[in-house]
Amino acid sequence: MYHAVIMAGGTGSRLWPVSRRATPKQLLKLAGDDTMFQHSVYRMAPLMGPEQVYVVARADLISALSAQVPTLPGENYIVEPEGRGTAPAIALAAIHLLQSDPDAVMAVLTADHYIADTAAFRTTLSAAQDLALDGHLVTLGIEPLFASTGFGYIEQGSPGIPVDGLAVYDVAAFTEKPDAETAEAMLKSGNYVWNGGMFIWRAARILQEFERQMPVFHAQLMEIAATLGTPKYEDVLARVWPTVETETIDFGIMEGAEDVVVLPVEIGWSDVGSWASVFDVRPSDEDGNILLGRHESIDTANTLVYGGKRLIATIGVDNLIIVDTPDALLICRRGHEQDVKAIVSRLKAAGDETLY
Amino acid sequence: MYHAVIMAGGTGSRLWPVSRRATPKQLLKLAGDDTMFQHSVYRMAPLMGPEQVYVVARADLISALSAQVPTLPGENYIVEPEGRGTAPAIALAAIHLLQSDPDAVMAVLTADHYIADTAAFRTTLSAAQDLALDGHLVTLGIEPLFASTGFGYIEQGSPGIPVDGLAVYDVAAFTEKPDAETAEAMLKSGNYVWNGGMFIWRAARILQEFERQMPVFHAQLMEIAATLGTPKYEDVLARVWPTVETETIDFGIMEGAEDVVVLPVEIGWSDVGSWASVFDVRPSDEDGNILLGRHESIDTANTLVYGGKRLIATIGVDNLIIVDTPDALLICRRGHEQDVKAIVSRLKAAGDETLY
Repeated sequence: MYHAVIMAGGTGSRLWPVSRRATPKQLLKLAGDDTMFQHSVYRMAPLMGPEQVYVVARADLISALSAQVPTLPGENYIVEPEGRGTAPAIALAAIHLLQSDPDAVMAVLTADHYIADTAAFRTTLSAAQDLALDGHLVTLGIEPLFASTGFGYIEQGSPGIPVDGLAVYDVAAFTEKPDAETAEAMLKSGNYVWNGGMFIWRAARILQEFERQMPVFHAQLMEIAATLGTPKYEDVLARVWPTVETETIDFGIMEGAEDVVVLPVEIGWSDVGSWASVFDVRPSDEDGNILLGRHESIDTANTLVYGGKRLIATIGVDNLIIVDTPDALLICRRGHEQDVKAIVSRLKAAGDETLY
Repeated sequence: MYHAVIMAGGTGSRLWPVSRRATPKQLLKLAGDDTMFQHSVYRMAPLMGPEQVYVVARADLISALSAQVPTLPGENYIVEPEGRGTAPAIALAAIHLLQSDPDAVMAVLTADHYIADTAAFRTTLSAAQDLALDGHLVTLGIEPLFASTGFGYIEQGSPGIPVDGLAVYDVAAFTEKPDAETAEAMLKSGNYVWNGGMFIWRAARILQEFERQMPVFHAQLMEIAATLGTPKYEDVLARVWPTVETETIDFGIMEGAEDVVVLPVEIGWSDVGSWASVFDVRPSDEDGNILLGRHESIDTANTLVYGGKRLIATIGVDNLIIVDTPDALLICRRGHEQDVKAIVSRLKAAGDETLY
C-alpha cells in the first residue's frame, strides 16, 4: 500500500519571530488560512486516506501537530525522541510501515513547503509509486525558477522511459548548495533541478540501502524494530536514539545509493524559506501589500504586515516586512530577509530561550 | 510674588500611539528620563519654589500629573472641569493667584515643550517679571530656526529699552500659522519670531483685558471667583464652566491687547510636536539612531525606535520612526510624521476609544 510520511521536525529560524522552536514554521498559517502542516496533510486526499498518512516529529511537537489535524490516527504520529537528521527519521518511519505492510511504498514529504498545483503533485506521486514498485529510489526534482544558492541540486543523467507521460531521468549526482556562479551555470545547462527533499520508494528497499551504507545505524534500528508493538518499544527507542548518528538522507544515503531516478516537477513549489517568499504564496493587494491582522495604512506599498491583534499603522513605507508577535517585533527591508537568522543567533547567544 | 502657571491640558495627537487622551504628551518621557511635565516643573528651580508653581489641567489628568510631581502642593493643581481653550484656563489661574496675592505676577508656561538652555530661560523669565511689574503684557518670542508653517508668529515692532541686557520689542501683530511662501518672507525679514505660547504679566492686569475684551466670560469668571475658598466653589465651577466660551488666549486677548511686548529668546526650544522632533531633543548614536527599549539591529540608520518591553529587531532600514505600545504599533517614514494625525482621525471615526 502507498503511504505518505510527512517530516515535521524542522524549525525555520528565518521566519522568526513567528517561527520558533516551540512554534515552528509547519505550525504557522504562512500561505493561507490553513497551516503549512495542514496543507501538507490535506493535499494528499484523494490520493490516499488519512490512515495512510504518517507524521514524524519531535516529541514536543506532537500535541500541537495532532491538534491541527485530528483526523489522522494517533498511532500515525511517529515520535523522534530528539532530532537526529532526516536519515534516522526516515528509517524509523520505514520500520513502522513495514510492521503492518511488508510491501509498503513510502512517499517522504515535507510539512513546511507550499505546493500551488496539488493535482499535478498527486499525479506525480502516482507515477512515482509505479517507479518505486519497480525498485527505483525516486526523487522529485523542482524545475528551477532562478539560480538559487539556497537549495541543493540534482543533476539529471540519462532519460528513462516516461511514466504516465512524465519524464524520468537517472540521477547523475546530488550536489550541495552552490555558489552564485555555479548556480548560474547549472540553471543555463538545463540539466539540474532543485532538491526539494521529497522521495518515494519501497520501505524495504530503502532499508537495504541503510544496511549497506549506514550499517552501524542499521543495527541500532533493528534493535528498535525488534520491539515494535511491544511494551518495550518506547524504552528501547529512548535509550538507543540518542546514540545514533546524526545524518541527512542526502549525504547518508542518496549520494551513494543505486538506481536513483528523478522526476522533474512543475507544481508551484515554494519552501517558504524566508519572509520574502510569503509574497510568492499569498496574493497581494493593488499596492503590492499583504496586510494580515488589524492595520491602518497611508502611502504603503510592497509591504508585508504579518500581525496579530494589535493595531499596526504604517505611513510612507515600502518594501518592508513587518512581523508582530506578543513579545517580539521584526521590521526588515525586503532583500535583507536572510539576516533574520543572525538576530536569532544573537538571541540564542544571549540565552533568551522564550524568544527563539 | 512670581508664580508659574503651567498649562497641562494638551493632547499631542501627532505623537500617537504613545500620546493619547489618557496619556497625553506632557506625561511622556520624550526628551529624556523625565517626562515633559517633570521637565517643565523642575526647570523653574531655582527661580522659584514649588509652592509658587501652579498647574492647570483637565480633571482626568490631575492624578497622573500629581503622581509625577508629588513635590507640588495639591492645592496648586487648578482643575478645568473640561477644556475650554487657553483663555478661560489662564483667567481661572489668575483668580486663584489673586486670592492670596493681589500683586501676583504669573508666567504662563507650557507643560509639553522642551527647553535645552534652562538657565537662559530662567534669566529671560526674570527680565520678563520686571516688565510685567511695569504693567506690560510680555510674550516670549522664539527665534525662528526655519520657515515653519506649523507655528503662529509674532511681528516685532519698535524696540524698547533692553531689560537685564535682553532686547525688547513692542508687538506689532500676532499672526496665524502662515503658508510656506509667507513663512519664507517672515524668516527673511528678521522681524518675526515664533509664538511659543509663553506669557508673563500681572494677574490683575490680564483680568482687566478679559473684562474689556471678553466681558461675558469675565462676568462668569467673577461668579466663580466669588466662591473661591468656600464650599460652593466646585459646584459653581462645575455649573458655570461648561457655559463659557471656548477661546484661545491669542485670539481672545493678545491680538487686541494693549501694551504687549515681546522678548526674543534663544533657549533651545522645541515643541516636540511630532515624532520627527524627538531627533532634536535626544542624542542619537553614531548611525543616527535613537533606540529606546529592548532592541537588536542590523544595518539600521537614522531611525527612532521608541519601544517598551517587547524586543524590536530592525534589519536593513533607515529613516524610520517605530513606536511600539502594548496595543498599537506605528511604523512611519521620516518626513511623513504629520500623517500620524490622520491615523488618529480614522480611529476616532471608527470609535476605537482606547486606541487614541
